[in-house]
Amino acid sequence: MIKDIISLQNSIVKEAAELNLKKYRSQRGEFLVEGVRAVQEATTSGWEVTSIFFDDSIPAAKIATMVKNSVVPCYHVSHVIIERIADTKNPQGIVAIIKARKDKLADLAEQKGLILVLDEVRDPGNVGTIIRAADAAGAAGVILLNACADLYSPKVVRSAMGSIFHVPIITDVEKKSFCEWCSREKWELWVTSLDNGVNIYEIDWTEKVAVVMGNEANGASEEMLRAAKKNVYIPMGGKAESLNVAIAAGVFLFEGVHKQALATK
Amino acid sequence: MIKDIISLQNSIVKEAAELNLKKYRSQRGEFLVEGVRAVQEATTSGWEVTSIFFDDSIPAAKIATMVKNSVVPCYHVSHVIIERIADTKNPQGIVAIIKARKDKLADLAEQKGLILVLDEVRDPGNVGTIIRAADAAGAAGVILLNACADLYSPKVVRSAMGSIFHVPIITDVEKKSFCEWCSREKWELWVTSLDNGVNIYEIDWTEKVAVVMGNEANGASEEMLRAAKKNVYIPMGGKAESLNVAIAAGVFLFEGVHKQALATK
Repeated sequence: MIKDIISLQNSIVKEAAELNLKKYRSQRGEFLVEGVRAVQEATTSGWEVTSIFFDDSIPAAKIATMVKNSVVPCYHVSHVIIERIADTKNPQGIVAIIKARKDKLADLAEQKGLILVLDEVRDPGNVGTIIRAADAAGAAGVILLNACADLYSPKVVRSAMGSIFHVPIITDVEKKSFCEWCSREKWELWVTSLDNGVNIYEIDWTEKVAVVMGNEANGASEEMLRAAKKNVYIPMGGKAESLNVAIAAGVFLFEGVHKQALATK
Repeated sequence: MIKDIISLQNSIVKEAAELNLKKYRSQRGEFLVEGVRAVQEATTSGWEVTSIFFDDSIPAAKIATMVKNSVVPCYHVSHVIIERIADTKNPQGIVAIIKARKDKLADLAEQKGLILVLDEVRDPGNVGTIIRAADAAGAAGVILLNACADLYSPKVVRSAMGSIFHVPIITDVEKKSFCEWCSREKWELWVTSLDNGVNIYEIDWTEKVAVVMGNEANGASEEMLRAAKKNVYIPMGGKAESLNVAIAAGVFLFEGVHKQALATK
């Protein structure tokens, strides 16, 4: 079902553009993705696509393949309208509205391996990059505790490069209930911290570990530090005082998944 | 030596602001750093500070400590002038002009360990983050082959968080001469590539390894792939097709430096 929209003032366009704001994303439980590949990832990963906007740079046949026989409304629009809806300066000619999922901690019940936990990680680029790395490493899931960047903000979605559709992500998790869940479900809780920590290369990795990465400037919160069974750190040989949180997450993810695989061989 | 400058039209201010452009950085061999900490790192690391601009938010005593007994010209200016010179939207009240160094490959002659080589890595944030990670890991140096983001652009300097002043970085290196230097100086050249690669966890790390990270979209260049002794890759367990280049660099850096240390124990 393809319709033309020509006016920037069309209410469907306006409402789509509103999804750049968290307020409207939360109200409606929807978010935007931009670009051919990301929209394709959403459709093939079984996420619900609410509507698609595309301009003349995208062949209608491509849209038809994406939506198959479903009744998703597809809007053929000018590039100006795409620019109005998209968050980037030079968007590709396609934007889609996707229904947000509400994964719950309980959905991880049968999982093993490594869960990456973000504790007040505020920069959307960091959150997205970490989700992409968690997917690439094969992590069991990613938890966004309260006060992280909004999972569905355009910049997080873009930095995650489609990985948002692959790896289980539980967002807006309250710290206290997360800690309780960890001890109930036997996930060992580790917090990255340079204080009193165990060197990442000298740890015994067990089969269910949740690793907490802290805020860019202040590190992990008091609450998570108190709840942790271990503090863990990446040994640094140079003069830099700290690592970018996404790099640190990447090192933990790959080292952890690798060592867990060795341990269960 | 502290002077007041009150006019945005002052030629000293204009010339400082010009250093946001590569053209002027190259012509004059100077670049800008912003923020108390970065300026401090520059001075304590022995880099030559050409001049300092600061506003009322920075105590003059702090400036005096930074420049000690040297004759660096320090300019007391309005915040508007700081904003004119700085690249960020909300700059701290201090910007300095630093003399660029010209490290050469020959300066790495006595080194061992891991050299990280960037091959057409274009995003300044990636280049800066990788330099910070290389410093943190304790890499022997970072090489920027031709066609990378400019080392001295404000965004690279900012993302590197002072690490530019710690780790040897050789920039604008021509690929062919780099490959020749590697074979002459016995640096084993590895290129990250998913094709015909060796798993990073199954490699024998030797004491002098140069690892090439390729362009964000296209990976390593043909020329480097041909010159490499080995292709190496990070095994990925999830559905993501690739890793952000800075994350991949981080994983290689820490795994490499760790394994090299084990091998020489």
